[in-house]
Parts: sequence; structure tokens; C-alpha cells
Amino acid sequence: MNELRARTRGPVHVIGAGLLGASVGLGLRERGVEVTLEDLSPTTVALAADYGAGRVRTADDPAPALVVVATPPDVTADVVERALAAYPEAVVTDVASIKLAPFLELTRRGIDLTNYVGSHPMAGRERGGAVMARADLFKARPWVVCRDHETPAEALALVEAVALDLGGVLIEMTPEQHDRSVGLVSHLPQVVSSLLAARLASATDQAIGLAGSGLRDTTRIASSDPELWVQILGANRQPVVELLDAFGADIAAFADALRDPAQAGAKRRIADLLAEGNRGVARIPGKHGSSEHFTTITVLIDDRPGELGRLLTELGELGINMEDLRLEHSPGAQIGFAEIAVLPEVAERAVSDLVERGWRTL
Amino acid sequence: MNELRARTRGPVHVIGAGLLGASVGLGLRERGVEVTLEDLSPTTVALAADYGAGRVRTADDPAPALVVVATPPDVTADVVERALAAYPEAVVTDVASIKLAPFLELTRRGIDLTNYVGSHPMAGRERGGAVMARADLFKARPWVVCRDHETPAEALALVEAVALDLGGVLIEMTPEQHDRSVGLVSHLPQVVSSLLAARLASATDQAIGLAGSGLRDTTRIASSDPELWVQILGANRQPVVELLDAFGADIAAFADALRDPAQAGAKRRIADLLAEGNRGVARIPGKHGSSEHFTTITVLIDDRPGELGRLLTELGELGINMEDLRLEHSPGAQIGFAEIAVLPEVAERAVSDLVERGWRTL
Repeated sequence: MNELRARTRGPVHVIGAGLLGASVGLGLRERGVEVTLEDLSPTTVALAADYGAGRVRTADDPAPALVVVATPPDVTADVVERALAAYPEAVVTDVASIKLAPFLELTRRGIDLTNYVGSHPMAGRERGGAVMARADLFKARPWVVCRDHETPAEALALVEAVALDLGGVLIEMTPEQHDRSVGLVSHLPQVVSSLLAARLASATDQAIGLAGSGLRDTTRIASSDPELWVQILGANRQPVVELLDAFGADIAAFADALRDPAQAGAKRRIADLLAEGNRGVARIPGKHGSSEHFTTITVLIDDRPGELGRLLTELGELGINMEDLRLEHSPGAQIGFAEIAVLPEVAERAVSDLVERGWRTL
Repeated sequence: MNELRARTRGPVHVIGAGLLGASVGLGLRERGVEVTLEDLSPTTVALAADYGAGRVRTADDPAPALVVVATPPDVTADVVERALAAYPEAVVTDVASIKLAPFLELTRRGIDLTNYVGSHPMAGRERGGAVMARADLFKARPWVVCRDHETPAEALALVEAVALDLGGVLIEMTPEQHDRSVGLVSHLPQVVSSLLAARLASATDQAIGLAGSGLRDTTRIASSDPELWVQILGANRQPVVELLDAFGADIAAFADALRDPAQAGAKRRIADLLAEGNRGVARIPGKHGSSEHFTTITVLIDDRPGELGRLLTELGELGINMEDLRLEHSPGAQIGFAEIAVLPEVAERAVSDLVERGWRTL
């Protein structure tokens, strides 16, 4: 990526040299932007510098044009306040996963927020730390930028330049819109998945033995870090509580309709709720932002290295583009299933071509 | 598979020539077992016969050794009763996805159930009908067989022979155990996923635009057929209502802990509930029935046919066996991420080998 000229005007100062901060540094350094680093931990900042995320800031360094605050969410407001005071000419942004709480806290303190533009790159990894940092981390991920009517165009442009240089997909929202949105598409699913998985903790081995791909899908994110989520959910309390209350009411209404089948319209009510789920899931963008439905082809594959690769290579040779792919194994089985989503118009040809080449499809 | 001698002693008579019935017929025919077919619809039975699932039963046919009832769950008890009366020498089984309701109904009617053995192959497809039937449908899937102390060994052996001939993985349970188990691992996740997705039906486009893989995973099964699920959930009412009540109480407790952070131990309670989710999800068997954890490697892939195939072919060349694979795309992006699960001991080598071959990993 070195050959591409950076949009970002430096120097950029990154406070907090963990996964996100170090990844911002790495990505900007690749574009030739000057980056300085700071962290409460001397070890962390030295490590990030060693990995190439920038150099440790000294008193002699010139004032930065932009400060990126990449600390845990519960200290974001404090660090933003200090950065605005320390670098009065600089634009300050943060990358915390909640946007309203820090904004309200700064406003409550009477801080002039002209130079502050909050942002949230929707990227992360299960394991944190500068060691896991990558220049590519934000590539192709939504990057939310929050502004209000007071935000100067130049300040906005500078934060957007960083997002674009790092390959993010820009999305503009108010802090309220952002927090409600992530509450719905990220925080609610996290709690629901965790609590669904929690019910398996005391299940019989027999029951667990019948688990299929449906259960695996719905509980996959339940393996997330509890400590991090206590912090995120606490900082987005109000929208999440409202969403949980509404969802809990839906669960209760469903249970009630199921409990008493003699009620007039009970079956209809259950069917309506399930159909509403059909409509909701159809709205989730798949690839390329579209929500169109794909046709799924299931192919049997032997469980040995290279078999799936051979299948996908042959799909490539046949000119069939996969829109999605899932693998499934049953316990005790020496065979797997590859579920391949393709555009409906190529599905029939894909199946007949694969069968002709000796693949078994379901 | 023709060369393998069937365990199943025929003739086998299949009542209900839809997806499951026709698949049983196809699989047994491949093993050379004599199969006759019957269906309320003359078109359906003729179609299944045309596909090779067996021949349409006539009055001249000899009595079957085994009858497989593959009708919708709400008529299973009626059809089993008629089959036991019509073929008093035959063993009768069914493949309905709930097991207690038909058993209780038959018992209530005072039917002698010595020759009845309920079963449930955990297989299915989103689209039904004989057209979708496959001899491979049950391959490597759990096949639950329910018996009680009265079940004669020969009757049990005959039903198990069918399950094994069709490639299923045998699991023995009582009807109560079966229904509670599928309630937990299949019916509860279905309702939870549907109701979570239902909340997206009225969401803003903005919010939906931030959807990531977590939301996609948790709501994937929400696209299931409402009519079929009204029938399944209605037939397993009591366990599902109990599970929904317990799950709803968990949701309410979580919301309460989050609502009032000043409560003593509120944060701890939230962390404990999330950690219980960690424990629950760790119990779900992955491949080969093990619940060990894999290490996930994320590889960036360009969005064009053959790229993923090339990656997986190279993994095969490197001797690295994938335990699981997921693809992820962000809206608007021309790049995708392949998340590859491997055994922890090969993860480091896999990454360095891939990077050496020019792949970008996260």
C-alpha cells in the first residue's frame, strides 16, 4: 500500500497502544504518515513502537494535527478531555465502541468540543494487545463517524481521512443513533446468545449430543470476553435495557401463545411472530450490502485435508462465485457438508456441473 | 453403496412419500432392500416411485417386515395405529421430530405398542417433497431411537438396522428425554433466533447497515418455515414453554442487573451470566463429538471466483486440516475474510506458512 498517497495530514498522535491504537498506527505508517504513540504502560507503548506502529512521543515532538484516543471505553472521556487541553490546535477523535456516554460526560464538564469528533471503527479481534495489531484491521469494515452541527468541516475531513486511509467504509451517525444501532445489531444479540448458551451449562450430555448447526450458529458469539462486555453494556445501559425489556416481552408473549393453544388465534399469533422473524432476517445485508436471497447447495466432502480446497477450486474453474460458505460436521462422522450459497440463477447449473465431476450434493 | 449387504430385512413399507419417506426409500433401495410406498396423494407416491424410492404398494404385495411412518407430526399417531392394525406381524416406526405426543396418544387409545419403536433422524432440508429426497440425507446425522422395557430386541434391531444402513449415528433415548433434548438444542434456539430477528423488521436502515457476523449467526435460522414450526412447537408445548419461561427470566434478571448499576454486585452478576454463556457454548460438540477449542486464523481474500479455493488447496498442500471455516463480507467491500479454525498446535505454523505464500492474515 506504500505507493498510495495518504489522505491523512499528520502528525497523528495515538493515545492507547493496544489492538486498535497500534493498528491505527501501523496502517497510517504504511501510508507514510508520521505517528507518535503514548500509553499508560511503558511496556505496551514500547511494544507497539517495536511492531512499527509509530514512535514513542517525547516532549520535543511537534504538536500533532490529530489525536486518536484508543483507550478502554470507561476512560475515554477523561483522555479526550486531557488531549483537547494538551493539544488545543489538534482535532481529537476516539474509537470507543459506545459514543453517547463519553460525549455527554464531556458536555457535562463544559468542555469545548469544537475539535472533537467521535468515531467507531466496527473492527476488533477476540484477543487484544499490540501483538495482535494489523494495518489491515479496519479494511472493509464499517467506520462510524459522529458529528453535530458545530463540527467544523476540516475537523470532520481529517477523521474521515484516517478512516478512508485505513480502508474503512464511512458511515455518519449521531452518538444517539450509533448507540441505539449497535445496541440492536451487536449488544442485544450478544446478551441473547450468552443467555441461550448459559442454559446449556447444566444440560445433559445426551441433549448436547443432538446439537446441530442451528444451535452452533445462535450461540457462537457466547464465547466473548465477559469483562469487556460488562464495560460495553454498562456504557450503553439505557438502549440495551430497553431492547432487553422489549425482547423479554416478545419471549413472554410467545410462551403465552404456546401455553394455551385453546385461546382464539393462538396458532396464528405464533405463526405471525415466526414470520416477523423471516422478515427481519431478510433485511440483514449479506455480501455487497444486498439483502437478496441466495440458493444454498449442500455438497458432501470427505474429512481430509485438501478436499474442500479441491471443491472450491473446481467451483472457480466452473466460473461459479460463492456468496457464502459454511461447513458442518456431525459428531462421530468422517464426512462433512459444505453449504454453498450461490446466486439463484446459477444454482441449477452449479449442481449439475458438480455432480458431473463426481461430487455428491444434497 | 450397492455392493454393501443391507442389515435391514425387508420388505419395508413407507407411509408418507415426502422428503423423509422418499429418502428412506431411496437409501434402502440402494442397498437392495424391497420397498413399497403409500401416500394420501397419488401424485406424491407416483413421483417418489419415479425417483426410485420404491414401488407403489398394491393389495397383492406380501406383508411388510417393517413399516416406516413418515407423515407430518400431527397425524403420526393415527397412521401408526392404522399400520399396527393393518400389519400385525410388522414392526412399525415413525420419523416424527417429536416423540412423546404420538406415544401418549397411542397409549391413551389403549393400542398394544409391543411392535412400535419411535425414532427421529435429525435430518431435513429447508424445502420438502420427494423431489428433494436423497439416499444420503441421513448420512452422519444423529438418529434417535426410543424404546421402553417392553420393546422386543428384534423390533429394536430392525429399526436400528434401517438407521445404520442409511448412515445415521444411533442414539437411544426415552420419548421424554428426546423431546426435552430437542426442546433445548433445537426448539428454544429457533424461537429465540426468530424473535431476535423479528426486532430487526422495524429497525432503521442505518442500524441494519452496522450488522456484523454476530448478528448474522444468531439470526440465521430465523428464516425457517413458520407453518412447520407452529406444528413442531405445538407438539412439544410443555418443554418449550418451560424453557421459554426460564430463558425469559434470565433475560429479565440480566436487564435488572444492567438497569441499576448501583445495586450491590450488579456488575458481578452480569459478568457471571456472561461467563455461564462461555461455559455453555464450550460444551457444544464441534467436529468428531469433541468440545475442544480450536484456534481461528483470519485470512483476507479477494472477492473473485477461485480465490478461496486457491487458499484451501494451499492449506491442503501444507497438510493443515481445517476444523471449521466461515466466510465474512462487509457491505460494500470487495474483500472478504475467511475464518479458519485449526488445532491450536498447528496455528502458528499455518499462519507463517500462509504469509510466506503471500496471504494476508489478521
